Amino acid sequence: MAVPESTQAKKTRPHGHDGFPLKDLSRPYRLAAHGSARATRPVRVSDTVTIGGAAITMIAGPCSVESAEMIVDIANRVKSLGAVMLRGGAFKPRTSPYSFSGLGASALGFLETARAASALPVVTEVMSTEDVDLICEYADMLQVGARNMQNFALLRRLATIKKPILLKRGPSASVKEWLLAAEYLLSGGNTEVVLCERGIKTFETGMRNTFDLAAVALAKELSHLPVVADPSHGTGKQSLIGAVSRAAIAVGADGLIVEVHPCPERALSDGPQSLDIPQFEGVMRGLSAPLRPVLAAQA
Amino acid sequence: MAVPESTQAKKTRPHGHDGFPLKDLSRPYRLAAHGSARATRPVRVSDTVTIGGAAITMIAGPCSVESAEMIVDIANRVKSLGAVMLRGGAFKPRTSPYSFSGLGASALGFLETARAASALPVVTEVMSTEDVDLICEYADMLQVGARNMQNFALLRRLATIKKPILLKRGPSASVKEWLLAAEYLLSGGNTEVVLCERGIKTFETGMRNTFDLAAVALAKELSHLPVVADPSHGTGKQSLIGAVSRAAIAVGADGLIVEVHPCPERALSDGPQSLDIPQFEGVMRGLSAPLRPVLAAQA
Amino acid sequence: MAVPESTQAKKTRPHGHDGFPLKDLSRPYRLAAHGSARATRPVRVSDTVTIGGAAITMIAGPCSVESAEMIVDIANRVKSLGAVMLRGGAFKPRTSPYSFSGLGASALGFLETARAASALPVVTEVMSTEDVDLICEYADMLQVGARNMQNFALLRRLATIKKPILLKRGPSASVKEWLLAAEYLLSGGNTEVVLCERGIKTFETGMRNTFDLAAVALAKELSHLPVVADPSHGTGKQSLIGAVSRAAIAVGADGLIVEVHPCPERALSDGPQSLDIPQFEGVMRGLSAPLRPVLAAQA
Amino acid sequence: MAVPESTQAKKTRPHGHDGFPLKDLSRPYRLAAHGSARATRPVRVSDTVTIGGAAITMIAGPCSVESAEMIVDIANRVKSLGAVMLRGGAFKPRTSPYSFSGLGASALGFLETARAASALPVVTEVMSTEDVDLICEYADMLQVGARNMQNFALLRRLATIKKPILLKRGPSASVKEWLLAAEYLLSGGNTEVVLCERGIKTFETGMRNTFDLAAVALAKELSHLPVVADPSHGTGKQSLIGAVSRAAIAVGADGLIVEVHPCPERALSDGPQSLDIPQFEGVMRGLSAPLRPVLAAQA
Repeated sequence: MAVPESTQAKKTRPHGHDGFPLKDLSRPYRLAAHGSARATRPVRVSDTVTIGGAAITMIAGPCSVESAEMIVDIANRVKSLGAVMLRGGAFKPRTSPYSFSGLGASALGFLETARAASALPVVTEVMSTEDVDLICEYADMLQVGARNMQNFALLRRLATIKKPILLKRGPSASVKEWLLAAEYLLSGGNTEVVLCERGIKTFETGMRNTFDLAAVALAKELSHLPVVADPSHGTGKQSLIGAVSRAAIAVGADGLIVEVHPCPERALSDGPQSLDIPQFEGVMRGLSAPLRPVLAAQA
Repeated sequence: MAVPESTQAKKTRPHGHDGFPLKDLSRPYRLAAHGSARATRPVRVSDTVTIGGAAITMIAGPCSVESAEMIVDIANRVKSLGAVMLRGGAFKPRTSPYSFSGLGASALGFLETARAASALPVVTEVMSTEDVDLICEYADMLQVGARNMQNFALLRRLATIKKPILLKRGPSASVKEWLLAAEYLLSGGNTEVVLCERGIKTFETGMRNTFDLAAVALAKELSHLPVVADPSHGTGKQSLIGAVSRAAIAVGADGLIVEVHPCPERALSDGPQSLDIPQFEGVMRGLSAPLRPVLAAQA
Repeated sequence: MAVPESTQAKKTRPHGHDGFPLKDLSRPYRLAAHGSARATRPVRVSDTVTIGGAAITMIAGPCSVESAEMIVDIANRVKSLGAVMLRGGAFKPRTSPYSFSGLGASALGFLETARAASALPVVTEVMSTEDVDLICEYADMLQVGARNMQNFALLRRLATIKKPILLKRGPSASVKEWLLAAEYLLSGGNTEVVLCERGIKTFETGMRNTFDLAAVALAKELSHLPVVADPSHGTGKQSLIGAVSRAAIAVGADGLIVEVHPCPERALSDGPQSLDIPQFEGVMRGLSAPLRPVLAAQA
Repeated sequence: MAVPESTQAKKTRPHGHDGFPLKDLSRPYRLAAHGSARATRPVRVSDTVTIGGAAITMIAGPCSVESAEMIVDIANRVKSLGAVMLRGGAFKPRTSPYSFSGLGASALGFLETARAASALPVVTEVMSTEDVDLICEYADMLQVGARNMQNFALLRRLATIKKPILLKRGPSASVKEWLLAAEYLLSGGNTEVVLCERGIKTFETGMRNTFDLAAVALAKELSHLPVVADPSHGTGKQSLIGAVSRAAIAVGADGLIVEVHPCPERALSDGPQSLDIPQFEGVMRGLSAPLRPVLAAQA
């Protein structure tokens, strides 16, 4: 009975109750941490798209891919408004087994059609080690969802592929735990990792999550990995997405990933937080507006 | 390209932003919910052990299986003190990729030796769909860890096996989300599910987690599934385990799962929360002590 | 312009960002901490009632005092069922300025009537330094509500009175912060302090609060102060109060404070968490039932 | 025995367990809510300073006033760098009774000196109803600290004064509860209220608090009250203050309140989160830098 390498005993002594000293924020994730340059190291997704460079990368698309026509249409529309990358769920994690959980493999084909039509690279979620090879055939970037941030078997598998990973922060993961999840990918051999802040669970019920924008700044201070922000899950409210998207850029995010649906009220998932096309256009326009000036002190 | 059944579009409309109405606590998990009997339905683990019956089921053992000798020794000792089931980790989820993550498959062999020596049935964690078949050869019950509570691919796979499942509550899962995770197992065909409360993440840093004992009572009110409590992860402090174990029984838990190690300060994982053998003996003795009486009112 | 003594500069250097080192859990609250005896020091409320002795002290009564007849009636009924102390709000903190906030001073008169009729000592909340003298005329014990746990002006004033204090834990207060709030009372001269756990705010919305029973055990481990548990606010659900009350006793609480109303659905405040008289009788009966036995190991 | 008007029974039926229906976010705070204009109504602090107008109001100063020389020096320096208002604590809430709690009344005199020297209006915290009259003699604006957000006696007293109020959000207050605390001031007669977001308590320990910038956007969506953000308490880390200050402006805050100290490592309180003068200069300069551009889509 052979012991798989990934699970062999590493006789390292644990450094603390969660694996390292509370106070030492720099060494536990030695590969995710800044090197001497202390600069963000950009991640290349395709010939046209890099995340972590001089400009903000805008990723947009529906929560779920619902049909070929729908995803092609959205891809063309969001591209015309400034998005450079397409998101769309094929395999959807759902709290209830009775909820719509994505069209699965057929949605991957629809995404391929949309990519061909729009020339936008595609990011889609992978929920299971079994699906990795299949999704790699279709996607330019694979997303690890918030609920899988500490699915270590999945992380170890994704560490061996040649595609960049978008690693969402878990709903109760500290920044330290998030960087250590990234460290699973980096130490396993996949250096092309982008972090994604999407809100954490707190006592506040006025929004779907508490969008932890300061954590974007903290992650960038501690790590060379690019960070993308997801205002759709971060707030769960269409009306706030413009404001928090601007804030995400101001705080240092390298990109935004936004849910857009031609008709949010008919969306099979995440309707209340999806923008329709005119709303997305408004959000995009707002991103280039100047910051409000500071009241001048009197002489 | 065939679409796997589990991921086919179910054209059910989502009922709300997480799949069902906030107020309706009884219908979303229709299989986990109480039937007309409103009684806990016991789960049989082995010829000798049932969880959810008239008496409390005590499960004990080390965080990690460290050697054959060690696990056989602990099995015999905890059995002599009243445990009826053995726990021990072979595949360990660890926040850091550099922490000891279990002996893996060889630990399963050691667990088999300990089961043969002690006649105690064994529960051990499964972290990945790939490991399910292997672990089923050795374990009497498979544990889904807190970080995998919403690993839906794993839940769907475990729904198809013939072994009972111990489903830990996620560190930021509501009771509703926990029962819906159980519903994945039940609706997929595995009716032998036991819930396990192990503490949630809150602002409190004086203990490892906030042990949510009221959630045990709430889960039992909402569901027919037995509930086990894990005071070791629930508090992370040896000194509190006796008190909170008694409280767990008082609140309605059907069993306890406790970390015991012959020498906690040398444990490869979870030392600070593991009991040594005399401490475990003390905790067991405390479980049968009567509750403190109520001050009599004067006439 | 004289500087009040309590606000004079104490040139003590702060020990950390919140006044003391994170790891030192024993010294910051030097008066609340255990002395050499490491035993709970009982607090005497009246000739008949002590909290922290050999038996559990049961405190019961309505959220708000609604009339003289109502409070006299409840006092007699809860006494006949085993309560030894009466609770009832005269001044009620309310989230909204438009909610019923108690009958105020007239309710104090009604409490006096009920005390005379039932011979039960009375605890009622004080919300403001201005009300301290007035409430001291009527109450045997003064309660500091959760939202005022860090109202330091109120704590400093209550440190100078000759009545015992019931200090509720704030909804986001760590055990350390709670004990430091008690330290304000102790260091100011009032040694008769009883702590009260009433639930904390977390992400869980299935109950009104997360009832932190392990914190009762932790507070008793760290301090000589008696601890009372409030299952009514702790869960906000009538149906759970029996179970969590038993758990509170099992975990080491010295008393319980329970909301009882002759007709909860007509209560002016806190109806959903108040017990009616038969329910309270059921809860009291349950407190003396033996703990469920542990499943015997086979030979 | 007269019943004070503020505590008389209002026979209004509570609308829910916290006084109003969960879903109705607009009506419970009818005065704080937007009127037909749906615009922020500016609050005038002095002849020179308004909060909520076309420009950002920058408030700066030390956590605690430590001497006359120190506060005069800081006032002049922060003014020269763009601050239009001075903050400084005279009465300081402290978790431990043994921590430095401010110089009290003498600090008010020092603040007056600094105001005269710099012509900056002053905001300082009021912790107790007893101190209201005294502080009103010296301050242009009174701050209600986070721990007093639901000190309803204090709110009711402050509702009767003629000075504007800076109302900090409690560490576990929802946006709804925050607006209802403001409603106490508004309904009591003081319409000059500014909200201040300063971070909430969550599981994250990498920063002092979780700075809830999306809540700034939500509060502005729900209410006409101006909102100021406090990045010093919001993060507790000097190195993040520049980034989160920009984000606060981008998300819609009307002002910033920042802790500045000539020598943070010698500060009597809040050193780790205070900026020194060059750091403050850097933060101010960053506020007018343009937002990073969005990556252009290819044709």
